[in-house]
Amino acid sequence: MADEQGCASGLELFHGITAQAERVRALKAGQASKDDVDSAVRLLLSLKMAYRAATGEDYKVDSPPGDRAPAGDSATEAEEDFVDPWTVQTSSAKGVDYDKLIVRFGSSKIDRELVNRIERATGQKPHRFLRRGIFFSHRDMNQVLDAYENKKPFYLYTGRGPSSEAMHLGHLIPFIFTKWLQDVFNVPLVIQMTDDEKYLWKDLTLDQSHGYAVENAKDIIACGFDINKTLIFSDLDYMGSTPAFYKNVVKIQKHVTFNQVKGIFGFTDSDSIGKISFPAIQAAPSFSNSFPHIFGAKSDVQCLIPCAIDQDPYFRMTRDVAPRIGYPKPALLHSTFFPALQGAQTKMSASDANSSIFLTDSARQIKDKVNKHAFSGGRDTIEEHRQLGGNCDVDVSYMYLTFFLEDDDKLEQIRKDYSSGAMLTGELKKELIEVLQPLIAEHQARRKEVTDEIVREFMTPRKLFYDFQ
Amino acid sequence: MADEQGCASGLELFHGITAQAERVRALKAGQASKDDVDSAVRLLLSLKMAYRAATGEDYKVDSPPGDRAPAGDSATEAEEDFVDPWTVQTSSAKGVDYDKLIVRFGSSKIDRELVNRIERATGQKPHRFLRRGIFFSHRDMNQVLDAYENKKPFYLYTGRGPSSEAMHLGHLIPFIFTKWLQDVFNVPLVIQMTDDEKYLWKDLTLDQSHGYAVENAKDIIACGFDINKTLIFSDLDYMGSTPAFYKNVVKIQKHVTFNQVKGIFGFTDSDSIGKISFPAIQAAPSFSNSFPHIFGAKSDVQCLIPCAIDQDPYFRMTRDVAPRIGYPKPALLHSTFFPALQGAQTKMSASDANSSIFLTDSARQIKDKVNKHAFSGGRDTIEEHRQLGGNCDVDVSYMYLTFFLEDDDKLEQIRKDYSSGAMLTGELKKELIEVLQPLIAEHQARRKEVTDEIVREFMTPRKLFYDFQ
Repeated sequence: MADEQGCASGLELFHGITAQAERVRALKAGQASKDDVDSAVRLLLSLKMAYRAATGEDYKVDSPPGDRAPAGDSATEAEEDFVDPWTVQTSSAKGVDYDKLIVRFGSSKIDRELVNRIERATGQKPHRFLRRGIFFSHRDMNQVLDAYENKKPFYLYTGRGPSSEAMHLGHLIPFIFTKWLQDVFNVPLVIQMTDDEKYLWKDLTLDQSHGYAVENAKDIIACGFDINKTLIFSDLDYMGSTPAFYKNVVKIQKHVTFNQVKGIFGFTDSDSIGKISFPAIQAAPSFSNSFPHIFGAKSDVQCLIPCAIDQDPYFRMTRDVAPRIGYPKPALLHSTFFPALQGAQTKMSASDANSSIFLTDSARQIKDKVNKHAFSGGRDTIEEHRQLGGNCDVDVSYMYLTFFLEDDDKLEQIRKDYSSGAMLTGELKKELIEVLQPLIAEHQARRKEVTDEIVREFMTPRKLFYDFQ
Repeated sequence: MADEQGCASGLELFHGITAQAERVRALKAGQASKDDVDSAVRLLLSLKMAYRAATGEDYKVDSPPGDRAPAGDSATEAEEDFVDPWTVQTSSAKGVDYDKLIVRFGSSKIDRELVNRIERATGQKPHRFLRRGIFFSHRDMNQVLDAYENKKPFYLYTGRGPSSEAMHLGHLIPFIFTKWLQDVFNVPLVIQMTDDEKYLWKDLTLDQSHGYAVENAKDIIACGFDINKTLIFSDLDYMGSTPAFYKNVVKIQKHVTFNQVKGIFGFTDSDSIGKISFPAIQAAPSFSNSFPHIFGAKSDVQCLIPCAIDQDPYFRMTRDVAPRIGYPKPALLHSTFFPALQGAQTKMSASDANSSIFLTDSARQIKDKVNKHAFSGGRDTIEEHRQLGGNCDVDVSYMYLTFFLEDDDKLEQIRKDYSSGAMLTGELKKELIEVLQPLIAEHQARRKEVTDEIVREFMTPRKLFYDFQ
């Protein structure tokens, strides 16, 4: 089933999983760093996948293989997924169950009707991320459209935590979509680089974190944002240059208790007071008067935030605070996670070069990574595959094509052919490689055009030029 | 004994104290505001004072008057004082036991030897606050003097929380002393106006809090600071205009946990994340690179902080963090509290007009307040007073004279005369009134000279002119 199927026996794997689960619990209970916990969790999930591959069944606590009652409905049901800004965990190779997440987070599904409405409002074909449910959830998007149709202004806000110089494909998803939104709605955009957050969470100096913010800004600019309508700001710079921003941060901080952030983010008494107060800093750009150069003293310009669903906790908090400090709640558009090459169980890791395609990868590296590491939904032998067909639901190459292949018909044809067995894994991977190689090469070419001068201009607080319709 | 002695019986008062103590406990345990708790504590202390006046003994839990064993040494020992940045509690009319506080806080006594050393280093007669033990405690002052004698630079840092427009006499103490330090050492000075703190703690808007900062700055300027050597800054303004300041705040916030601030400041899970992270903002000016206009990127200029002892918890935290982020620990000079007119048990309250002399009071108001409200150490009748003498240890007028009467000999004469009974309470109060009336009038005259332009200049981050010797 898997490209790199282990040959350990089911029982060996069972004991391995039990031991690893214990280790994860111990790490979480102790003072272990997030990185250590994440890596232990990744290993645990790999073991579970290998177990499923070896035994054909999901791992169950206290129930070694062979010693098992026939699986009923409840046994096949996925364990609860875990999603917060720092950890995304699921044991399903299909990835997180997003319908359940919508219920749990209390957001709304982006249904056909909403997609049609966006099409009507903008007069543009909806972006493939909308057509394909990659942006799948929202809060108050209908309100944004109501306002837009009544010629009332709104602005876009998204961001990035610059934890390293290297950005990968997954990091581009919100920016590709935000650029489209900016184009079709013709609205101003602010992009927050949370270099302060990365300093607080990671083993980085302030200079490193700020340096990453500037490097990452180049990749973001290379997505094609309009310099006349876009502000990119580093928290470390912007907090120190805009009193209106700090004032909003303090306002939010006054109205959120430790109890609240404990409930939302899982902070503990051992966390630094920097981490504990940071959520206010990610919340503040949701309010238009944080940007006096753009909006003057206006505090009621509606904000729309496209982001991955794991960032929602910040904005649930923001939406809770907003009415209490006299500001409108930001609206949201949530994306699914971009899967790691190894499978949809985890987010990608910028520290594991083989977990994703990086924006700096060569054509050759892209080809090798896809061929070697992209988790396959294909069968063990060509004969079996021809006979039974592949599984697009768990195939990472197919998933990546849903993100990046623009042609709907071609994508559907690939799905059919791969599912039927007419298309082999190697052929599917070739399709992906042919999409990714030019996409990355073009990104690299655009990034080369981004001079320090251009970065400086994007990152300078200034008047933006746009019209509200 | 007291000017306004209650006529309730000892037993009535005993039950009143028991009930009020219960109420204070309930308020502290519940969600009560600091103001409510403070006011309940003040009432409790007044009841205890009245009890002592009525029974001649200190109130003791579970021991109603009459039902009492002869007092041994342990019974006369004062209950433990409580001192933090928001509450100062003592049941002794002499005020807080400062020697005990030195032991508890782990600071050092400013002894005769240190005062002499300051005199030798500066070639100036020590300020009366040093001569009289009003600045009584320090941390690392000898290190500052070592450096100073080796022509190594240092700078002064003090501050004010602008909780209202009205400042009173007590608020001047650190500023009067800091001005003297600036003059005799010829060093730069930064004065932090924590308008963000007051917004976080009080029921104020950001504009109110910032407005108080500017109003209070005028009173501070009227103390005579040298405009070429002094920066006054509002946190709300400065955070938004100086990235170097925010960077130090984040650095500190990364290295202090909630557990630590809980231990130091008594924060709870119900406190806002703004309060929880604020201590880093009061800590940051202790590091010279928070002021790039003054010190450039230099992070090793020694800081000396003159402040009231209740601010020490902030700087214990700062000194703990400093070596971990590569900065020198700030040195400190601690003052005693300026007593309320009603007695040395509490700090004064800016919200109670009769608890102190305000900087806006007229000569007439000063006279009336001293005569009517200043707690007296005199006897009930002139005959008794002549015979037994007054008690300077609890007499607020005498205490105020120790703060403001410059002439040591005259002060000593007053002490002798009042203690012997040669001087009556009215005469003592007259001495104080004659010191305070011109002092306040001169302050008011100087404050009138402080134009908006002058305030703006003091509050503009800029190069300062001074030489390190």
